Amino acid sequence: MSPYLAEIIGTAFLIVLGDGVVAAVILSKSKGNLGGWMVITMGWAMAVFVGVYATAKHSGAHLNPAVTFAQALQGNFPWEKVPGYVAAQMGGAMLGALLVWLSYKQHFDETSDPNTKLGVFCTIPAIRNSKYNFLTEFIATLVFILAILFITGPASSLGSLDALPVAFVVLAIGLSLGGPTGYAINPARDLGPRLMHYLLPIPGKRDSDWSYAWIPILGPLTGAAAAAFLYKYLLQ
Amino acid sequence: MSPYLAEIIGTAFLIVLGDGVVAAVILSKSKGNLGGWMVITMGWAMAVFVGVYATAKHSGAHLNPAVTFAQALQGNFPWEKVPGYVAAQMGGAMLGALLVWLSYKQHFDETSDPNTKLGVFCTIPAIRNSKYNFLTEFIATLVFILAILFITGPASSLGSLDALPVAFVVLAIGLSLGGPTGYAINPARDLGPRLMHYLLPIPGKRDSDWSYAWIPILGPLTGAAAAAFLYKYLLQ
Amino acid sequence: MSPYLAEIIGTAFLIVLGDGVVAAVILSKSKGNLGGWMVITMGWAMAVFVGVYATAKHSGAHLNPAVTFAQALQGNFPWEKVPGYVAAQMGGAMLGALLVWLSYKQHFDETSDPNTKLGVFCTIPAIRNSKYNFLTEFIATLVFILAILFITGPASSLGSLDALPVAFVVLAIGLSLGGPTGYAINPARDLGPRLMHYLLPIPGKRDSDWSYAWIPILGPLTGAAAAAFLYKYLLQ
Amino acid sequence: MSPYLAEIIGTAFLIVLGDGVVAAVILSKSKGNLGGWMVITMGWAMAVFVGVYATAKHSGAHLNPAVTFAQALQGNFPWEKVPGYVAAQMGGAMLGALLVWLSYKQHFDETSDPNTKLGVFCTIPAIRNSKYNFLTEFIATLVFILAILFITGPASSLGSLDALPVAFVVLAIGLSLGGPTGYAINPARDLGPRLMHYLLPIPGKRDSDWSYAWIPILGPLTGAAAAAFLYKYLLQ
Repeated sequence: MSPYLAEIIGTAFLIVLGDGVVAAVILSKSKGNLGGWMVITMGWAMAVFVGVYATAKHSGAHLNPAVTFAQALQGNFPWEKVPGYVAAQMGGAMLGALLVWLSYKQHFDETSDPNTKLGVFCTIPAIRNSKYNFLTEFIATLVFILAILFITGPASSLGSLDALPVAFVVLAIGLSLGGPTGYAINPARDLGPRLMHYLLPIPGKRDSDWSYAWIPILGPLTGAAAAAFLYKYLLQ
Repeated sequence: MSPYLAEIIGTAFLIVLGDGVVAAVILSKSKGNLGGWMVITMGWAMAVFVGVYATAKHSGAHLNPAVTFAQALQGNFPWEKVPGYVAAQMGGAMLGALLVWLSYKQHFDETSDPNTKLGVFCTIPAIRNSKYNFLTEFIATLVFILAILFITGPASSLGSLDALPVAFVVLAIGLSLGGPTGYAINPARDLGPRLMHYLLPIPGKRDSDWSYAWIPILGPLTGAAAAAFLYKYLLQ
Repeated sequence: MSPYLAEIIGTAFLIVLGDGVVAAVILSKSKGNLGGWMVITMGWAMAVFVGVYATAKHSGAHLNPAVTFAQALQGNFPWEKVPGYVAAQMGGAMLGALLVWLSYKQHFDETSDPNTKLGVFCTIPAIRNSKYNFLTEFIATLVFILAILFITGPASSLGSLDALPVAFVVLAIGLSLGGPTGYAINPARDLGPRLMHYLLPIPGKRDSDWSYAWIPILGPLTGAAAAAFLYKYLLQ
Repeated sequence: MSPYLAEIIGTAFLIVLGDGVVAAVILSKSKGNLGGWMVITMGWAMAVFVGVYATAKHSGAHLNPAVTFAQALQGNFPWEKVPGYVAAQMGGAMLGALLVWLSYKQHFDETSDPNTKLGVFCTIPAIRNSKYNFLTEFIATLVFILAILFITGPASSLGSLDALPVAFVVLAIGLSLGGPTGYAINPARDLGPRLMHYLLPIPGKRDSDWSYAWIPILGPLTGAAAAAFLYKYLLQ
């Protein structure tokens, strides 16, 4: 299997299971309604586990442009493959979000609040403030990518056996630093589903909150760059 | 031990522990009452873990007709063994449901709502609609079986060391895609206990909701077929 | 280290952490108050993990007279060592309960309900009925010991690497079959702390509910015997 | 990488993720608000996992003066390195606390209760009483360090593969013995962030509760000494 196809599939796993758990908790009449923070964070962690385990041997399981960017900055991943990886990650994220929408179609219809419908797809800050929201995404991604780099060491990508520790890192980040912004820490995780929210004929939807969309892109990318810099120049 | 006996025992483990956790959460006066979505999904995940770990080396731990069907479609499992495996899975599921009923007998008696009593045995959709309920079971099983196929690779069955990743896949599916229909993703898990609900002398029970029973059979089987097709013809 | 000392220490780990999580959830003003069923069952599972991991290589980590009894019935453990193992398990359980009482002394004083104080030490059925309470403990222990026997295979005892699967079995049992009686599934886990409740100068305590005490002894022992019989004569 | 730098980084991981989960649960308007005891204890366990996994091969992943002290008392770690390790742990803890404050800046501003703001940084007993609070920290750390010593055996430090069992030990301790004092069990985990609370310009903060600060230092150190003594002279 080509690594690009693997990135599509892995990121689709990530988002169908990740956006899925948000749908389970926040949409009306779902059996998981009001399941709470443990459900949300465990769901995303297991989503990462499945995505990484399934695709690690085919593509290294980046599933996240911030990971791809950090690896390229490190010199561990060729820059010419970056656009293809990112495109695949975006496509997979959009496919995953579509599957969530189909699976929860009736529950979207039962949910009246437009912000809740948007919240299934992409992150919405608890308290909106560009400076602090950016700072939180920057710090959360820095901690996330730095931990990943320590776990993989000089390798450019993840193996199947890294799926569990990486899932636990994501669980840790979500539980701890997810409170203010919902921890995008992955530009494709946010932008791909946001595009699907924009494109899909969801009854009673609001706009796709494009004014916020740059934060879960630039926060993670700058955090990843800072992590790569810290790891390469200070710690090796 | 014969693989058929192993499938009986493994599926009995799966259902006594899986239907058991539903009983713990929804039946009156249980110590786990109102335990929530995390308890339900973790209970089913651990039920899968125990069933797979205990029987993997004897039968490959299918424990699910959708898994058997997908492996046969792949050419990894002989078609002539399929009826025996499915019968064993059904028998094990019925045995497991019987043990749950015996263990929670007093709590069934204390519970007045007939739907709650039925809900211990088999899945009931949150919003009843044949088309969308089928679609959700199809998607959830497609994701489930595809993830399993990626984990086992070309092997026809699971080993003991696959118990943990498979349990985590089930945890992920339950947390994320279980909200609309309660994630049967396994025809024997639903039909076996539904038959026991029909057969057992449960005071104050309702009918066994046979009009819904085809969905948690055909949804998982078609989803499994789609996953097998995707894995074999597109990805290999 | 002698295996008897290891059983004392391992069972003390089990009970200080297991009875401890009950104290955390049910005693007044504890930071874990009202933590719920997930907290209780995860706490006991992790208690088993620590006890087994710490002592497996020294004693095989029985930590439970029902396990010792099942192994002896299987012919995997010498009968002459059974009394010593059981005595060590009882002593360890009493030591663990003492440490819980000391750690939560102020919270015992703040808690007015005598049943709550007793409930930290030993199991109390949700609906009191000798026949059904016995049946539930019998089934839960049968499932528990049978799963353990499948995991360890013909070995007479557990190794460190069995700590995680055994902990997950206990998590599964607790989540699923713990609702009616609180899953003793271990005579020492119930009787040892019950004796400490009887002996300790706990202000405002009730009697130690001796009329129930035989159920979490005989239920687990008969369930273990049934599991050993099933495993040895039907499945091997 | 020098072991001192590794201890700084590992302890910073521990505290940004550990204090972070407390912030997520107790600060106003956080998405994890009211997440409960399972969220808190799982967050700290995963924080330990990340810190240990990332730094085990560089420094042995002490991340805790009580661990360093116990290893030195055992003769497994040179006393002359103790001050450097402890200083690195304190520095890392302070850095982690700073990152939590920056990440949750707006939520600190939204939270009016000064005790809640302090509670993000350091432990506050549920019922204040020097004798019993000390006793609880002593017992919890004794159990914690004794379990760690059994897991690592005669080794002086942790390897990457110890990250999971150590995280589960911390999960067990938190769930079980964390109720009365919030389980510091680590002097740097409490004192480092307490110093940051004292130093940072947090609007509406209270004093840093220095009269309690000795308990999460001396309780853990004496508990660790008792564990080292028990392990070395009684059990080896």
